[in-house]
Amino acid sequence: MALRRLSTMDSAFLVLERQHLPFHVGGLMLFQPPADAPPDFAAKLAERLRQSTQTAAPFNRRLVSRLGVKFWEEDRDFDLAHHFVHLALPQPGRIRELLDMVARMHSAHLDRAYPLWRTYLIEGLEDGRIAVYSMIHHALVDGVAALRVQMKTMSADREESLTLPAPWEMKTRKTRNVPLPIPAFSTGSIATVSALLRGGRKSIPAVTRQLRRSLQDYRSNNPDLITSFSAPRCILNQKITGSRRFAAQSYATDRIKAVGEAFEATSNDVILAMCGGALRRYLDDLHALPESPLIAGVPVSTRRDDSETGNQVFFALTSLATHLANPAARMRAVKSSMDYNKQRMAQMSVAELVAYSSAMYAPGVVNMLTGLVNRKRTLMNVVISHVPGPRTPMYWQGCELTGLYPVSIVIDEVALNITLVRRHDFVDFGLIACRKTLPQVQRLLDHLETALQELETAAGVKPATAITGKSRKRTHKPA
Amino acid sequence: MALRRLSTMDSAFLVLERQHLPFHVGGLMLFQPPADAPPDFAAKLAERLRQSTQTAAPFNRRLVSRLGVKFWEEDRDFDLAHHFVHLALPQPGRIRELLDMVARMHSAHLDRAYPLWRTYLIEGLEDGRIAVYSMIHHALVDGVAALRVQMKTMSADREESLTLPAPWEMKTRKTRNVPLPIPAFSTGSIATVSALLRGGRKSIPAVTRQLRRSLQDYRSNNPDLITSFSAPRCILNQKITGSRRFAAQSYATDRIKAVGEAFEATSNDVILAMCGGALRRYLDDLHALPESPLIAGVPVSTRRDDSETGNQVFFALTSLATHLANPAARMRAVKSSMDYNKQRMAQMSVAELVAYSSAMYAPGVVNMLTGLVNRKRTLMNVVISHVPGPRTPMYWQGCELTGLYPVSIVIDEVALNITLVRRHDFVDFGLIACRKTLPQVQRLLDHLETALQELETAAGVKPATAITGKSRKRTHKPA
Repeated sequence: MALRRLSTMDSAFLVLERQHLPFHVGGLMLFQPPADAPPDFAAKLAERLRQSTQTAAPFNRRLVSRLGVKFWEEDRDFDLAHHFVHLALPQPGRIRELLDMVARMHSAHLDRAYPLWRTYLIEGLEDGRIAVYSMIHHALVDGVAALRVQMKTMSADREESLTLPAPWEMKTRKTRNVPLPIPAFSTGSIATVSALLRGGRKSIPAVTRQLRRSLQDYRSNNPDLITSFSAPRCILNQKITGSRRFAAQSYATDRIKAVGEAFEATSNDVILAMCGGALRRYLDDLHALPESPLIAGVPVSTRRDDSETGNQVFFALTSLATHLANPAARMRAVKSSMDYNKQRMAQMSVAELVAYSSAMYAPGVVNMLTGLVNRKRTLMNVVISHVPGPRTPMYWQGCELTGLYPVSIVIDEVALNITLVRRHDFVDFGLIACRKTLPQVQRLLDHLETALQELETAAGVKPATAITGKSRKRTHKPA
Repeated sequence: MALRRLSTMDSAFLVLERQHLPFHVGGLMLFQPPADAPPDFAAKLAERLRQSTQTAAPFNRRLVSRLGVKFWEEDRDFDLAHHFVHLALPQPGRIRELLDMVARMHSAHLDRAYPLWRTYLIEGLEDGRIAVYSMIHHALVDGVAALRVQMKTMSADREESLTLPAPWEMKTRKTRNVPLPIPAFSTGSIATVSALLRGGRKSIPAVTRQLRRSLQDYRSNNPDLITSFSAPRCILNQKITGSRRFAAQSYATDRIKAVGEAFEATSNDVILAMCGGALRRYLDDLHALPESPLIAGVPVSTRRDDSETGNQVFFALTSLATHLANPAARMRAVKSSMDYNKQRMAQMSVAELVAYSSAMYAPGVVNMLTGLVNRKRTLMNVVISHVPGPRTPMYWQGCELTGLYPVSIVIDEVALNITLVRRHDFVDFGLIACRKTLPQVQRLLDHLETALQELETAAGVKPATAITGKSRKRTHKPA
């Protein structure tokens, strides 16, 4: 393989990386081995995977510098033992020990002298399941692409799954369809410039029109308009350390859908309302709930027919309505905020949207990182991201997939990230947070359940009868 | 605790630290639980240690910055779960899996937002032993002090050992009696200045005399004089990556003593000759053995009655005589090199010694780091360090100590460090190396055994009868 120069975006992930701020994404997967699996099933699986040495791009690419410019180069001394590691949980092998282990591994940097990924096969869960935790640097692939590779190694057929290669043997298209974890100032500028180059100067009148519309909504106190200074700075918005806490749990897809139908809202709206309810309770317990509503940064796909570049993703700033005690009122306010976002976004081309949001939110990015304009306000309080998952039961190496929890990135001033995968039967939540900044993050899991129950009650949905088929359990301990 | 400003030396360890170059030291200890230990012995021990929350200095000190100056401050949110972690080895639980795990943990940085240490209790070894791996930043305490704390938590009496507190509850004197892992240029200059301040200008004639003596020895081709440019640059002397390989093994103290007596050499001379023999074979296998002998940097204590500052340590540069195929000739050459070092050092006060070595070796430090003077030569090829260990059997929490392996630091241009602890029955070798730079480091363990056997044969020592008492095994797999 020849040298491949890194894109501006890929370089940004490396340049912006700091000791306390690694830019890798991860995923924790749980698998149920076959009923007749022997006691050394995990050790044998590890041994089999160690034979999988036909590494495909990008898993064989390592970073090299030539005269200060960074390139990808094929690693000719590829050392699988560095990348694939077999681990075990200590007794008693609870989910709690697993989440602690994942948090520790996610806190460590990948060594830039090697291809920037690692996969851990973890045995010793008390319920007999095995876990796989994978981490990969955002400069190599984004989380969606990483998940896509994982899915390609699985099959809806248990037998067929035994014939599929290891994830690192799967050739993957390089994709870049999620932005930086936040619209950081430097990449914001890059994005503005390239959007204007793509969209041409003809975008400018449309963007000006949209900014004028925002000014009108601001003057008329439209609560759905989120400005650079809407988010109240709270304990979620501090400088972070390099240590992470990870929490994960699954909630039945049917429950979320039922609430959505009752409120004529999308499942995504319901999930945001759940997060709003959980964060309200979490901050209230800590006597740290701001008076004005928390603002979530929600990556939204902006795929359009008129877009040249295929998938693009945009950060919608959405109210979580945490100022409202009533669950139904909170649900309606979150839906209204998301509907407003979608309606405004529909009026713009991708190029216009990027230019608009740079103009609208650049002051907020600066303020978030410096506090120079308004120390009590910030751009967003939390990132809530959703990723589409498999729509049917899936198998990997003969084992059924029972959980797929994203392990994302937190950054200075946004110390909590909630990313979830929607599978056919469960929505798998992965919460990653700065360990030192945010206490007792695992309580958010209970608060999410409580928030969902409150929404079910408000919607008049009877949870016990809303569940059908295999999804008997209402909450699924990782989860 | 008030703020304590860091010393220049402590700050140096933090300032010089890089992503690929962490400055923490570690130790791997192996323990044999009591014969009647239940299967959940390790889990219960972990639970007991988790109750040990009365953390003493320096284990409760975290780093803070005030106006750019670094201080130690008591961590008021001390979070033991961050520092003490219970782990398990995957099946089959061989020493190999343990060494891999330790290497991975040693490759990760400590988070500067927390007190700079971590201790891991590891269960799951197939032979039923338990392991403890501890890491602590060199800015907090040095390796010798860290070992001293560990020893204070142990007892020669099994019952008494059950009553002793956890290591982090042991108040320890702050000591600083080992230097930087190498005499880096910046700290070399600091050392020169402070030595001259301490020793006064009256040192200068003595230092000049010693430098003149070195010049005479150089002109007369004295092979025992090691200059700045004696060491042949080889594969041991490359830029390192951030990933480590760890190898460990024990060799019976009696065997080493017997060889020493036969050659009228110290045990330390024999150990250096073993290292020389092992490195000769290792490099020869890789077709990378230089023609001229490898030079080891050997930290040597320079305690004197005339020294004001108590213990000081100096890097003696010593030939490993790797150019000699004959083990007896190699043994005699190593002894001669060490004797020359000791004789020269005995003629100087500590202040003179520091000033002399700065003048003598500063060009070598610069050359080692830059290659500007002579790309084929360097200051030293390897660091070989020894640490005194316990002289009797010791117990910790009711378990017998059966191995105590140092896990030290490697740096750019010195990719291998061999540090050993001399206990009553075994000498425990810990070899730490850059994983990417040096292949198959674990082979050095076999080569050390071979080198010792060759020395035994050359000495006419019968190994089988030289072993007495409990030390029946001649080599002790960690080791």
